[in-house]
Amino acid sequence: MNPGRCAACRHLRRKCPPDCIFIPHFPPNVPQLFVSVHRIYGASNVAKLLQQLPLHLRADAAESLCLEAQYRIEDPVYGCVGLISLLQQQILDAEKQLAKTRAEIAFLKSQAAQHPQAAALRGNLSDNAADLSFSDHHQSFCG
Amino acid sequence: MNPGRCAACRHLRRKCPPDCIFIPHFPPNVPQLFVSVHRIYGASNVAKLLQQLPLHLRADAAESLCLEAQYRIEDPVYGCVGLISLLQQQILDAEKQLAKTRAEIAFLKSQAAQHPQAAALRGNLSDNAADLSFSDHHQSFCG
Repeated sequence: MNPGRCAACRHLRRKCPPDCIFIPHFPPNVPQLFVSVHRIYGASNVAKLLQQLPLHLRADAAESLCLEAQYRIEDPVYGCVGLISLLQQQILDAEKQLAKTRAEIAFLKSQAAQHPQAAALRGNLSDNAADLSFSDHHQSFCG
Repeated sequence: MNPGRCAACRHLRRKCPPDCIFIPHFPPNVPQLFVSVHRIYGASNVAKLLQQLPLHLRADAAESLCLEAQYRIEDPVYGCVGLISLLQQQILDAEKQLAKTRAEIAFLKSQAAQHPQAAALRGNLSDNAADLSFSDHHQSFCG
């Protein structure tokens, strides 16, 4: 066995050429990375995806393909999409909490305004109102 | 051309057998769905992914594969992982806003407590403190 072969060429039982598209991203000491992408995408599709990218972007692409493949193996029905749905639900929950809190702060401001010593609070509360703009930037998966 | 062929068999220029694994999920009137998954996963890998699932889960699996393929086509470097990173950043931003708001509410409670007519606020504020538990349930992609 040629110890210099990358994990992909080892898995595919073939020689590892000097210009192997896989060798920078699938080192022989981490064989599981290629096993996952090979199982989900197939070697030729992974090679095509990497070849269409400039060299400096291929490492990130290989890493994201490995992550997506691992999620598809762990959750064959939903894969990454299951996690995206969960995260979007967490964002919706956060938006509800922020909206409720905005209303409570507005109520507290009206109470604080009745007391002179509470005047110093108003600046903080105005800053807070400006910060609580999270829901305006909500990213939609299906958008 | 056989108008009864599914989008997959049309794209692959082959007969569409009565037990075609693709026909329930890739109707002929929506050809782009199969074009995307074929480009990213390959027909045989999509068929394998669907065949390993019980019938009642295959529609969701086909839909999630189409979504992931579309994201990979739109973003060949990061695919779905790019969106997951964006959503996780939005959740971290929301957690920071909630933590800041918790601190401000605690400060306002201490101010309100100095005024008898503010006593009625305390129940609401306690409820709010119980609600602001979002960050305790933060889902980590890498977890």
